[in-house]
Amino acid sequence: MARLLRAATWGLFPWRGYCSQKAKGELCRDFVEALKAVVGGSHVSTATVVREQHGSDESVHRCEPPDAVVWPQNVEQVSRLAALCYRQGVPIIPFGTGTGLEGGVCAVQGGVCINLTHMDRILELNLEDFSVVVEPGVTRKALNLHLRDSGLWFPVDPGADASLCGMAATGASGTNAVRYGTMRDNVLNLEVVLPDGRLLHTAGQGRHFRLGFWPEIPHHTAWYSPCVSLGPRKSAAGYNLTGLFVGSEGTLGLITATTLRLHPVPEAIVAATCAFPSVQAAVDSTVHILQAAVPVARIEFLDEVMMDACNRYSKLNCSVAPTLFLEFHGSQQALEEQLQRTEEIVQQNGASDFSWAKAAEERSQLWTARHSAWYAALAMRPGCKGYSTDVCVPISRLPEILVQTKEDLNASGLTGSIVGHVGDGNFHCILLVNPDDAEELGRVKAFAEQLGRRALALHGTCTGEHGIGLGKRQLLREEVGAVGVKTMQQLKAVLDPQGLMNPGKVL
Amino acid sequence: MARLLRAATWGLFPWRGYCSQKAKGELCRDFVEALKAVVGGSHVSTATVVREQHGSDESVHRCEPPDAVVWPQNVEQVSRLAALCYRQGVPIIPFGTGTGLEGGVCAVQGGVCINLTHMDRILELNLEDFSVVVEPGVTRKALNLHLRDSGLWFPVDPGADASLCGMAATGASGTNAVRYGTMRDNVLNLEVVLPDGRLLHTAGQGRHFRLGFWPEIPHHTAWYSPCVSLGPRKSAAGYNLTGLFVGSEGTLGLITATTLRLHPVPEAIVAATCAFPSVQAAVDSTVHILQAAVPVARIEFLDEVMMDACNRYSKLNCSVAPTLFLEFHGSQQALEEQLQRTEEIVQQNGASDFSWAKAAEERSQLWTARHSAWYAALAMRPGCKGYSTDVCVPISRLPEILVQTKEDLNASGLTGSIVGHVGDGNFHCILLVNPDDAEELGRVKAFAEQLGRRALALHGTCTGEHGIGLGKRQLLREEVGAVGVKTMQQLKAVLDPQGLMNPGKVL
Repeated sequence: MARLLRAATWGLFPWRGYCSQKAKGELCRDFVEALKAVVGGSHVSTATVVREQHGSDESVHRCEPPDAVVWPQNVEQVSRLAALCYRQGVPIIPFGTGTGLEGGVCAVQGGVCINLTHMDRILELNLEDFSVVVEPGVTRKALNLHLRDSGLWFPVDPGADASLCGMAATGASGTNAVRYGTMRDNVLNLEVVLPDGRLLHTAGQGRHFRLGFWPEIPHHTAWYSPCVSLGPRKSAAGYNLTGLFVGSEGTLGLITATTLRLHPVPEAIVAATCAFPSVQAAVDSTVHILQAAVPVARIEFLDEVMMDACNRYSKLNCSVAPTLFLEFHGSQQALEEQLQRTEEIVQQNGASDFSWAKAAEERSQLWTARHSAWYAALAMRPGCKGYSTDVCVPISRLPEILVQTKEDLNASGLTGSIVGHVGDGNFHCILLVNPDDAEELGRVKAFAEQLGRRALALHGTCTGEHGIGLGKRQLLREEVGAVGVKTMQQLKAVLDPQGLMNPGKVL
Repeated sequence: MARLLRAATWGLFPWRGYCSQKAKGELCRDFVEALKAVVGGSHVSTATVVREQHGSDESVHRCEPPDAVVWPQNVEQVSRLAALCYRQGVPIIPFGTGTGLEGGVCAVQGGVCINLTHMDRILELNLEDFSVVVEPGVTRKALNLHLRDSGLWFPVDPGADASLCGMAATGASGTNAVRYGTMRDNVLNLEVVLPDGRLLHTAGQGRHFRLGFWPEIPHHTAWYSPCVSLGPRKSAAGYNLTGLFVGSEGTLGLITATTLRLHPVPEAIVAATCAFPSVQAAVDSTVHILQAAVPVARIEFLDEVMMDACNRYSKLNCSVAPTLFLEFHGSQQALEEQLQRTEEIVQQNGASDFSWAKAAEERSQLWTARHSAWYAALAMRPGCKGYSTDVCVPISRLPEILVQTKEDLNASGLTGSIVGHVGDGNFHCILLVNPDDAEELGRVKAFAEQLGRRALALHGTCTGEHGIGLGKRQLLREEVGAVGVKTMQQLKAVLDPQGLMNPGKVL
């Protein structure tokens, strides 16, 4: 009877966390008090400035502030918060470092932003098993700092010092993916708070748990304390839930811990650069290097526009030509050989200025242009924001799409330059836009959409690493087709039946 | 109205493909005729011997024959067959090479076995992109034969010459996984026929498709012709459907094509073996080799019982001691260095008899014991069948679980030996059992279950590569917990609402 009544109430008042249906955007005082009861009064804010800080990321998407921001201190609190929102029909938006590029944290339907950065413990580190368990407040750099004397490191590097759980949620990758894989390859297990507050360990729970009961969580789902399993290196046990949650962009649940695979720190590192007469020659070199099984760790491409911008920004004298930036990891002896083979290959493809460096400082100097690319691009049009496209195609199609993209860029009248993780077929066209100029913003969006369609026509994807977020939902439909989208919608509906987890994203 | 009527009929007659509810096991003549209308009369069989051939794999699970076996010639036919079964409430069991080890093809609720081996084309090969698209009839060895002069190969090697799509369905791996990953890491895209006949491309459809309409497929789902995308190397577009279907063991849909990542053929290969004074010493060596970032391609462990059996079976003179079998892939120069480092490490751990070989014939000779392990184990008790356990634990826990397992083996009175993919923490205990001796079979199952629980207690999994199938469903519950199983059940229910895809497996 009680259950029936509750169900009926839910149906009648789906907006119960709000003062009234019309007053969406203003949470009930009771509801805010309930949030405070879970995390403590000082860890809840409804101040405009705080909400606005949490309503946008590094993209050009318009800020849509949440109705409140809360800072849980542990997974128990996250679970209780989710259950509270779920029962009151209030949207939930997980927040890490806010360094996303596709509007993933915009609160398009309002709701509660759950800022997870106060949960910043490294829960378990096992050097023998090359694995670590981290909470969402631990960033990529913080983890590598912690690991600095251990002989291990975590190589996935999207550029920003992002939260590792956020990187898992986005399916991030970056410059090292060609050798070490993306987050999809390096997440072994996730602890996820489901929309109704239940706790899921995607690749196996720990063995010991204690039951707990909280008023917010439906009585039939006993809550148990976190015991994230380090987990084995591989598994064939049931459906791959880890894979499903990696890249789900906060739309299926809140990631409260992730088990990551670590890698041995290379004995030595060599960096190299070389300029090419054409895009085709640079890409051909990449393919030949991969085919020769040279285990290159990074292989990045900058077009001549970007090189010119970098020369100006960082006062360099690099050739204004399509350029590859390479990095090799291995033993001293192995590196000699890798370097020699690479030099042979790039010279066969007409490269000039093949330079390399071993010492950390010289390496950094050699890669200056690549490291400063984003800011050099922004400096091309001061006062503008950068918008980064993110298509990824089979490597053989790269020259074709790069040439077409350059033609489109010229035709569009937009300012843009190209940087790419060329070993994966993934490249970014960094466009400069005045966010207050709606017409220009429209042209940028049209250009990005056209580029996405080009990638699809070449059997590629509209996003290699930034995710779908707000802006690429139509392209996703075209990419995976009606049956693909329908299947994703079914998965979303069954895991988040009220549609409260980060609404308006992905689907 | 028509839809309502159809829904009502489904509810009333869920067994419509059968003559009556009581006569399950005997398909209606009309239904068999409908199958023949799709694939042609010569590609449907209800003969007992054929059905029995399709009702069991290489496991000790009892044969449960399907009610009919059909051999579709193309994906269009698979789609129409699925739609037909779906409308008539008849279970569907996909069948590849029948080399599974967990009863995955047993037709526990009867139904139609769809043997996919007639679809054996290599649809597309792209050497520049290191990818290939294959149909389900293409086996691992057939693909590598096709690739022999291309400079590329497909390294995932579970031992058996299995169908590549079947390997994707099982989430297979094997000896090369420590370097090249498992099927989860090497499948880029899947073409899947969903239970109702709709066609899904998990990581993007091809761009060009033609619509088709078939009487068996609900009119609202236009069917389109196969155009499997080679796909990019990475993607962050929406939920990872590829990951969801890899390892789903035929319970979510029929895999009709898979896009695989290929790898460059190594310039040179070196094989090596060495014996150790203890299990701990062998495992310590493994961890040290991995920590030293030696990119070992295979690292296999055989216990002294297995070595003794191999000596007898293959007339060898190997030390009867825990032994590692290694393989290195790389350039001539890199191999020298890898070999030297490995020798240093194993000798520090007390290894003796470190032998290595470069020429193909000598390598094969050196690995004879490993290659013949399965048959050597079977020869320990002629006339018996082998049952292979499949737990996987974090590497640091391997010595502990191996020692415990040996004690349990002795206590159980069973005949068994151990072989392991020690670089992944995955090992198999090959038990010999008289399948007609119910008491012994019971002891084997009890032993396997106990071993599975031990692995879980050590943060491992009950299956590293064979899958859940029929026998490990209880262990899966314990491994992923109530919330994990509930989540998997929800995913199954939403993708296969009538529960017709390979019923009784995984969940």
